[in-house]
Amino acid sequence: MEETFVPFRGIKNDLEGRLNCYKQDWTGGFRAGIRILAPTTYIFFASAIPVISFGEQLERDTDGVLTAVQTLASTALCGIIHSILGGQPLLILGVAEPTVLMYTFMFNFAKDRADLGRELFLAWTGWVCVWTSFLLFLLSILGACSIINRFTRLAGELFGLLIAMLFMQQAIKGLVDEFRIPKRENPKELGFIPSWRFANGMFALVLSFGLLLTALRSRKARSWRYGTGWLRGFIADYGVPLMVLVWTGVSYIPASSVPKGIPRRLFSPNPWSPGAYENWTVIRQMINVPFLYILGAFIPATMIAVLYYFDHSVASQLAQQKEFNLRKPPSFHYDLLLLGFLTLLCGLIGIPPANGVIPQSPMHTKSLATLKHQLLRNRLVATARRSMGLNSSLSQLYGSMQEAYRQMQTPLIYQEPSQSAQGLKELKDSTIQLASSMGNIDAPIDESVFDIEKEIDDLLPVEVKEQRLSNLLQAAMVGGCVAAMPFLKKIPTSVLWGYFAFMAIESLPGNQFWERILLLFTAPSRRFKVLEDQHATFVETVPFKTITLFTLFQTTYLLVCFGITWIPIAGVLFPLMIMLLVPVRQYILPKIFKGAHLTDLDAAEFEESPPLAFNLAAETEIGKGSHFAESGEVLDQMVTRSRGEIRHMNSPKVTSSTGTPSTDPQGRTSPWLSDKAHSLRMSELRQEHSPRTIEVIGPSKLGEHARDSPSV
Amino acid sequence: MEETFVPFRGIKNDLEGRLNCYKQDWTGGFRAGIRILAPTTYIFFASAIPVISFGEQLERDTDGVLTAVQTLASTALCGIIHSILGGQPLLILGVAEPTVLMYTFMFNFAKDRADLGRELFLAWTGWVCVWTSFLLFLLSILGACSIINRFTRLAGELFGLLIAMLFMQQAIKGLVDEFRIPKRENPKELGFIPSWRFANGMFALVLSFGLLLTALRSRKARSWRYGTGWLRGFIADYGVPLMVLVWTGVSYIPASSVPKGIPRRLFSPNPWSPGAYENWTVIRQMINVPFLYILGAFIPATMIAVLYYFDHSVASQLAQQKEFNLRKPPSFHYDLLLLGFLTLLCGLIGIPPANGVIPQSPMHTKSLATLKHQLLRNRLVATARRSMGLNSSLSQLYGSMQEAYRQMQTPLIYQEPSQSAQGLKELKDSTIQLASSMGNIDAPIDESVFDIEKEIDDLLPVEVKEQRLSNLLQAAMVGGCVAAMPFLKKIPTSVLWGYFAFMAIESLPGNQFWERILLLFTAPSRRFKVLEDQHATFVETVPFKTITLFTLFQTTYLLVCFGITWIPIAGVLFPLMIMLLVPVRQYILPKIFKGAHLTDLDAAEFEESPPLAFNLAAETEIGKGSHFAESGEVLDQMVTRSRGEIRHMNSPKVTSSTGTPSTDPQGRTSPWLSDKAHSLRMSELRQEHSPRTIEVIGPSKLGEHARDSPSV
Repeated sequence: MEETFVPFRGIKNDLEGRLNCYKQDWTGGFRAGIRILAPTTYIFFASAIPVISFGEQLERDTDGVLTAVQTLASTALCGIIHSILGGQPLLILGVAEPTVLMYTFMFNFAKDRADLGRELFLAWTGWVCVWTSFLLFLLSILGACSIINRFTRLAGELFGLLIAMLFMQQAIKGLVDEFRIPKRENPKELGFIPSWRFANGMFALVLSFGLLLTALRSRKARSWRYGTGWLRGFIADYGVPLMVLVWTGVSYIPASSVPKGIPRRLFSPNPWSPGAYENWTVIRQMINVPFLYILGAFIPATMIAVLYYFDHSVASQLAQQKEFNLRKPPSFHYDLLLLGFLTLLCGLIGIPPANGVIPQSPMHTKSLATLKHQLLRNRLVATARRSMGLNSSLSQLYGSMQEAYRQMQTPLIYQEPSQSAQGLKELKDSTIQLASSMGNIDAPIDESVFDIEKEIDDLLPVEVKEQRLSNLLQAAMVGGCVAAMPFLKKIPTSVLWGYFAFMAIESLPGNQFWERILLLFTAPSRRFKVLEDQHATFVETVPFKTITLFTLFQTTYLLVCFGITWIPIAGVLFPLMIMLLVPVRQYILPKIFKGAHLTDLDAAEFEESPPLAFNLAAETEIGKGSHFAESGEVLDQMVTRSRGEIRHMNSPKVTSSTGTPSTDPQGRTSPWLSDKAHSLRMSELRQEHSPRTIEVIGPSKLGEHARDSPSV
Repeated sequence: MEETFVPFRGIKNDLEGRLNCYKQDWTGGFRAGIRILAPTTYIFFASAIPVISFGEQLERDTDGVLTAVQTLASTALCGIIHSILGGQPLLILGVAEPTVLMYTFMFNFAKDRADLGRELFLAWTGWVCVWTSFLLFLLSILGACSIINRFTRLAGELFGLLIAMLFMQQAIKGLVDEFRIPKRENPKELGFIPSWRFANGMFALVLSFGLLLTALRSRKARSWRYGTGWLRGFIADYGVPLMVLVWTGVSYIPASSVPKGIPRRLFSPNPWSPGAYENWTVIRQMINVPFLYILGAFIPATMIAVLYYFDHSVASQLAQQKEFNLRKPPSFHYDLLLLGFLTLLCGLIGIPPANGVIPQSPMHTKSLATLKHQLLRNRLVATARRSMGLNSSLSQLYGSMQEAYRQMQTPLIYQEPSQSAQGLKELKDSTIQLASSMGNIDAPIDESVFDIEKEIDDLLPVEVKEQRLSNLLQAAMVGGCVAAMPFLKKIPTSVLWGYFAFMAIESLPGNQFWERILLLFTAPSRRFKVLEDQHATFVETVPFKTITLFTLFQTTYLLVCFGITWIPIAGVLFPLMIMLLVPVRQYILPKIFKGAHLTDLDAAEFEESPPLAFNLAAETEIGKGSHFAESGEVLDQMVTRSRGEIRHMNSPKVTSSTGTPSTDPQGRTSPWLSDKAHSLRMSELRQEHSPRTIEVIGPSKLGEHARDSPSV
């Protein structure tokens, strides 16, 4: 999107863009059928569980004025509204840690004020929300989101990693606390005598690590060797929720031999317990707030506004990274506007507002990419089988698959005519190559020689099932949690900590910052292994020393940000530190690093974009089917590790991006063969570790070839 | 070895065979230098830890008459003597579970007899040992071991798996007991109140799983991507002992907040505590045993004799499987004779006798194979580097490597002249192929094009560092444990249970019975994955239904044996069940299965041996350098999973066994290329799952080609 600061233009563009595909947002969702439940439940847990534990935290810190009931209510309410009226339905809303910190701070401030106190606390936060929403309106109307362009991978991934660290920190803190006596609990209780406390702690270790390890494994189920395909698929899709159930079950095994409260479980008042609702009527008390405080509310409001403006936009951005090949337009300005309204609403009914959350939002997109892949796959496989039934030739087969593929395309709004063709060309080429590799293109074929499922896996580009249903459903389910509170209370807190750790780890794959950190710890003699796997371009194009320097800089910056979060109140403003990265990236880094290197490590739009431009601001090239290569690499990195099988998805594309005929010892010419041969060499490498081989497919070549890979 | 029942001939042959290489057994060991410590410590822990916990068990069951001190002493004594005077130095001796069961039974019998009782128990067992050794003498003199020939992979692997099950059972039982009050302990102790008992159990879970998981990972360290090569090597070699230390350390972290005895630790009297030695003088009391009991001692003696005859021979056999390509002769008859003496000795000093143990013995050979590989490797790499320094051509390089290789060969006693040549030919061929693949064979070469380390990894055949030093050292260290008892007592019992589970799992890879069980659970759509990896021939040559039937039969039989071990006293005789397999295999199975299939699934010498004859009775073809293919496969299966990197070792050979020029799409002719191409196709498979590809390199071809693979 161009950087427009003309009032309302940004909002107008967003609305136009999204309205065009609004209907399809729904029909598409429903057409997905039952399978939509996989990403839905996956995201539901990812968004509900943190919200619940934040709710608990809030309850301790606000003497029970706010509880998990309110955080859940807010998340559900905002989620439902956003999924229906919001611009970007991939964006997941929820009550986030920073919000909790702000509310805690405000409560500590309010409770000691004679003329405010515990009673008027919610009323006062109401005013804070009023101011906040006012500021958010201003920001969105004036098109502040435009500058998100300048916010590059450098900052985005740093933020992502920071969130991961915070989640991991939460997990560890939680586990340690399992050995301690909780605040505001009666230390006399049987559960808190040293022996039981120790027992509880050890039990917590077992439960949380059990959940973490099994959950991580279950995500890879698709590539398991044992069990039927259906079972493996089911476990991969629903494994994580399943494991939460399983380990909750396990926590009840020793029930007979332990006192109540071992292991510790979620604590939260039932929504129907007295006083759980007093907050809904807060609007009536808002007039009782002294004028001075109404004005003073502006100060926390600015902080929250900055925080939300930033969080919301970045979450949305990370959910729309270019590697996902999204076909539908973004909607930063309008979504910020809506967020303003949501904040206002939450403020008036006295619940903490929700905003776009990380890592849930990118997790959402990833799971939808998997879904879309499966849908396309099944459809094409069916088609292929049918036309094989009429034992047609490969070219006919290709024709019918073309057709089916075209039918399943979502209307591509914001794209040049060229590039719906792009996707198809991609499909055609690979099929033809396939044919040539199998000799006669017009001979009838059958499954013995043509493994449909696998070939199609290779043909398919990366696409995301963009729709609103999964978001709406997960939000509704979060709402359901309020009612299901009695059941939620059965979940041991330790399972929660395990889940936090799981989320932190799940958010790492595909984060190039993280990949680079690992690269630094990779033994030089092992670096070739990185080359074998799917990998980003910089690995080949940027000298190792530069990568090291760049990564060390980023790491130091990360640690500084992390340190800041520990400062009581300033901690809330750590996003400013990340905002600061924009000028740093724009004016300082170019002085330190070569332009080309910087481009590969962290391309930025505002620099005249080079062929390899790799930019988080996906919106400018929405749905441009090009860059399959990188998208392949990165999505593989992003999805595979957590989705096993998916890796197949676009290996050919990836290898084609890195393979060049000249690398092929047999010097064969057909691009497909050379690519295969290359992928073979690559895997040969896996057994070899031969500098020679790496030498041959050397960096330079790889790099430049990758540049024109889309035209393969 | 031929089946000779001529008295003493077997023993004579064994002695001749081993005397020839006795000197080399020592020099070879010392020439290995410091590296010998890797297999030594590895086996030391594998043999000491079970002995200690058996000692504890024995102490509970014999009211402290026998303790870990005695079991350790016996293991050390017998180990040292056997490593010096024994025939097959690969065989590890130790006090095994069955012995413990027998002694427990005998104690329960003796303690209630008025004229025997606790006092004369050891004296009586002395007599039992006298009888036992007498029987063992008879068996060895009459050449009973000859029929070990008839004991095939079917029985050997079944026995191996049974032992693994017993170890795993021990681990689970131990963990469960951590939640209970130990027998013969004072239930009033603080450590046994419900809360602390539960805490102890949970702590035990953490410690044992911690050890199990980290130990398993550490074994794979060589293939890790992170850390320097040295560190990875060190962890792979010493990881397991290291982890025992680490987790023992961890068990002390909460020391301040838990009462003494949490977690529970090894309990055993110090060797210098009063009465720990009363057993040494038992011989003086042996005359006091009533005559009737001296005669009666013959009954348990027969059981023990059968048990030892069987255990000892099988352990020795499993340590000499053909896939190890041992160059030195076996020594079943003589070792059994020596065992007789050892039993007598132990009996007279009142300690339970030791015998050959599984899985330690095969573990020993495996770790020595790794050692040998590293030694050869370093030597050849050095040589190659030197001759490259004089930038010589590849043919010269090959010459000098030849020379170095020859120098490192152990004198090959029992082999036709042909086959020292065999090993060299192997080396030559691969080098030449390598050359041809790189164009001019006489052009000078340098490391940029010739990756020494890797090429040599491929050139090296599977060899085992056969020597006596590692065995002697580990036995001595076990003896040292008696003195180190105060330190051993610091090890938590839960770490022991974790280690038991580790041993059970470590013994699985390479067990074709186990592989087949897994195959049954492999989803049909995933079976191709088995073909990609190193795999035994039957996978390709035997129809799946047959494999299933055969495996189900074997599994049922296994479960029956396992069931029998639960029967109080008859349990000790489960080896008889396994002996029963000999006739079953010889007379019944051939009626059910096709000969060819049976040959691939479980080749037996007494059938006219087919080219693929795969027989546990390795001795007949000692050192025959052939069958690199299978040996490759199986050793890979055996070693790799636990040794990561090693897999490289002989992949080319393996693929050469399965790859055939005709499979090569490009129809290239050079064997090396075709092999490579094949290995590539294989790895391509890994990404593809394409039945077509499997079709091409189809079973039949693979099968027959594998048959003449040695001639590659």
